[in-house]
Parts: sequence; structure tokens; C-alpha cells
Amino acid sequence: MKGSTTIMASKKRCLAAFQGELGAFSHSAGRKLLGADAAFFPCATFKDVFEALQADTVTHAVVPMENTLHGSVHENYDHLVDYDFKIIGETNIRVAHHLIAMPGTRLRSIQRVYSHPVALNQCRIFFRNNPQFTAEPFYDTAGSVKMLEQQQPKNAAALASEDAAAIYGGVILKRHLEDDRKNFTRFFLLSKQEGSLAPPEHAWKTSLVFSTANVPGALFKAMACFALRDVNLTKIESRPLRGKPWEYLFYVDLNGHQEHKPVQNAISNLQEITLFLKVLGSYQPTP
Amino acid sequence: MKGSTTIMASKKRCLAAFQGELGAFSHSAGRKLLGADAAFFPCATFKDVFEALQADTVTHAVVPMENTLHGSVHENYDHLVDYDFKIIGETNIRVAHHLIAMPGTRLRSIQRVYSHPVALNQCRIFFRNNPQFTAEPFYDTAGSVKMLEQQQPKNAAALASEDAAAIYGGVILKRHLEDDRKNFTRFFLLSKQEGSLAPPEHAWKTSLVFSTANVPGALFKAMACFALRDVNLTKIESRPLRGKPWEYLFYVDLNGHQEHKPVQNAISNLQEITLFLKVLGSYQPTP
Repeated sequence: MKGSTTIMASKKRCLAAFQGELGAFSHSAGRKLLGADAAFFPCATFKDVFEALQADTVTHAVVPMENTLHGSVHENYDHLVDYDFKIIGETNIRVAHHLIAMPGTRLRSIQRVYSHPVALNQCRIFFRNNPQFTAEPFYDTAGSVKMLEQQQPKNAAALASEDAAAIYGGVILKRHLEDDRKNFTRFFLLSKQEGSLAPPEHAWKTSLVFSTANVPGALFKAMACFALRDVNLTKIESRPLRGKPWEYLFYVDLNGHQEHKPVQNAISNLQEITLFLKVLGSYQPTP
Repeated sequence: MKGSTTIMASKKRCLAAFQGELGAFSHSAGRKLLGADAAFFPCATFKDVFEALQADTVTHAVVPMENTLHGSVHENYDHLVDYDFKIIGETNIRVAHHLIAMPGTRLRSIQRVYSHPVALNQCRIFFRNNPQFTAEPFYDTAGSVKMLEQQQPKNAAALASEDAAAIYGGVILKRHLEDDRKNFTRFFLLSKQEGSLAPPEHAWKTSLVFSTANVPGALFKAMACFALRDVNLTKIESRPLRGKPWEYLFYVDLNGHQEHKPVQNAISNLQEITLFLKVLGSYQPTP
């Protein structure tokens, strides 16, 4: 395990890939993890993000792993299994949608409000209470603010993040239009090297993926590997493997570093009873 | 446990609520579960679907619970906890996107292709290989075919399901444009009464939700309740409870009916060690 200071000192040379336009929630998560001095590399797809890190086009990647309303992003778990990167950081971002327009746009002149349909759907109460606004689907939340900047329409606004407003010179006319305030997305920071960005007093977490044969009690035995060492789990999720109807992939997060003795023993024990096991990394959460 | 024949005989009187436009994947799942004679009630939101069943506006509800790429739909698990309905059926639908146009539209004249951005994103290879088409975001997959029917544009098409093409009189010009064929969504059929739609030779499954205190080994003890009775689990997922950072909700699916003795004993044992426990229903999967 490398000290966190090395990584922290080299923050300025960070270039991090993420999916979406500048101002996307992944970009905000990256700024929180790497600081405002880091540079960012927008990609069209998650696969492109992983490819950019694989090709050393970037030093880091920031990817969403789960959302409190929409569940785990299995695609990114698949990529974590396929590529050989380390999770070196973790953070949560509250998904907040603000009404953003270009400077000079008056609230009463707005007729169309652009955003990704998922964001539009998360602001239904706002649209119900403000029938003068027509919700207009767009391919991206931050991208809708970028479009406003480029086209300068007089009667349009967008729903996106505070970061998107700042990046494209937008003005926030109304804040927190999302129906549910308990909408958080969890992000991982990835690199080819191990290391942690957080000060060392933060507790460590470790993430792993494994599969067991589908025999009754297989998961119970896996859980026993951790319980016998008092290693606490903070996430467990099974995912049926398509095409292999009786096999499951399990996602597990635990408290502790993979080189701490009890965790090391638990993982070594787990290896005896799993068909497949991959430790994705040990990291310290950024609150 | 009621016999499945009673419910099967009353299929014709079924009216099932679902989220989306007619032709949405939830509608297709409902047709698979209830048969072509059932009537369907489109709703704008998942909450509206549950409210429609609560108010007896409908006899059944069909809701997506998880997707092989996007994970569990936590919102619908929340509704299952909040409303007192029974899961009485389960099925999986392959998410397939076809290029659909109105009759008489020629492939070479198509310039714009409408669909929900999630669907557009799932067909990236098609758009990369066919740069003559511009992807146009729309609020709904089936809704984009409905729009074609209403507006009859000469140079536009939509990406949606086979059911959507049939319902709105569209013609499928190209099939299976989705990048990943392993895209399945799992649906539950809900009603106020218990019962199963499948022939009795199908194996039973039972779904439950519970929470434990976050003490090391709490989940291990919960798993022990099932392992001790050789009850096999087909899904387990933890979900952190926002606002209660040390509490977790667990989703569990198991093989067996809640009135089968070993399952009954396991659940009764589980009740001793959980803070909260709700059995969501026993049902027979529709393949």
C-alpha cells in the first residue's frame, strides 16, 4: 500500500476520463476526488472511459457505480472485471437539478426546458406546478446547458447541475427542482496504480467481485469467510449471469484494506470456495 | 395459497396498470403474463401505477424490478414496501430495439431517428455505421412510434419494440439494432390478492425485504436462517438507507413458497434477528 501523499502531490498532473459533457455529475465527482486543478477528458461512453485509461490517454477515470434510486451500474462492474485497474477513491454526489438559463433570459419568457429525460422525470412536481414550461428531451443534462450557450435561445432553459451552469456561463433561476432529495450517485476513481487520495485517518474500504457455484449454502459459506474474522460488509449484491442461468456474480464491499491481516485471511479463505474472484481495490472514501 | 386455475379463469377481466405508453416493454411484459385478452392502463409514473392498483382502478400492476445492464429499480422496491400488494407473477423481457417507420417511408429517405436517449445509447454501433441517421431524443421509446403515427413525417423513424410497431401501425425496417443482446428486464405482476398465473408444475419463488442492524455478522446470521434449512437464494442485494447511514435494506429472492415448511421456518427465524421484515409474495415465474 503506497502512502497517500505521493498521489496527493501529483494531483496537478491528473487527467481524468469521464462519461458525458463537461459539467456532468461524473465531472463533479472527479473534481471532488481530484481537486479543481485536475484536468478532465469527456468521453461518449463508459467503454470509451475505460479505453482511455487503458491507452494511457488519461491518468485516472471516474465512473458511476450505483445510484440510490436506480441501482448498480452493472456495465461498469463488467468493465472493472475486464480491465486491470485499481479503485483508489470513492465518493457520493447528490443529484440536484437546477433551472439554468443564459444571462438576460427572463423566467417569464421561458417556454421550453431541456434536459435528459431521466432528469425531466425526476422533476415532475415542478412541471406539474408550472404548466407554462414544456419539458424537452435532450441527450445529456450538462449538454443541454452547452446547447443554450451555443444557440442562445430567448425562450429556453435547461435542467442541470450547478457545475454545468458555471462551465457554460449559465444563471441558476430556480434551485433543487428534483422531486426526491435522496438521490445520490456513488463514483469510483480508477487508476493503473494503487494508492489513495484521502488523508490516512480515513477508514479503508475494499471492493471485490466473485462467483460461486449455485449450490444451496454457497453464499453462506462465502459470508462465513468474513464473519469468522469480524470483517464487516457494507455492500453485497448478487447478479445472475446471463447465458449461465445457475451462476451468479457477487459484488462485495467491506471495511478494511486488502493487506490488513483479517481481510487478507478472509480473501484467501474465499478463494478456496469461489469459481472466480477479483479484488478491485482498497480505497479511502472522500466524504 | 389459492390455486392458479381461479386466477387463470378470470384473466379476461384483468386490467393492468403499467408505466409508459402502449407498446412499452412493461406493456409487453404484461401481455406475456396476462395474455392478449387482458386490458392495459398506461400511467405516467411508477407511483401512478401503484396508486391505480390501490384505488382499484385496475386489478393488476406490472412493474420493472431489475435490468441486466442497469441494476435494481429501487423506487419500485420502495413502493412494494409502502403498499400492501402481493407479487403473483414474474417474467423477463429481452430489450430489443428495432428501426420502425410508418408504411410507405423508404429507408433511404430517413434522416432522423427518434427514441428515449437510453435506447439511442444502446444502439451506438448502428448510428456509428449509419452516419446518415441523426439520433433524436424523445421522452419514450413507444411514444416515439406513437408520434410518427400522429405526425406522419416522411423522413423520420423510431427505435422501439415489436409491440410498439404493431400497436401504432409501424413497419419494422431493421431488426435488433441494440449493441448488447444480453439486455433483459425482470418484471413483477402485482395484485391485491395472492395467487399465481403459472401452471402448478412451475417452481415457486418468494421475495422479501428486511433490514438488520449494522453489526458485524448480522447478514451472516440472516443467511444462516436460510442455509440451516437448505433454502436456496436466487438474489441478495443490500441497499444503504439514506439518512440512516448504518442501516441497510436487503432484497432476497428464494426458491420455495412462503407456506412451505422450511421457508416458513426460515422466515420465522429471520424475524427474530431483523429490525424490519416484509414478505412481498410467492409466485411462479413465466419463462
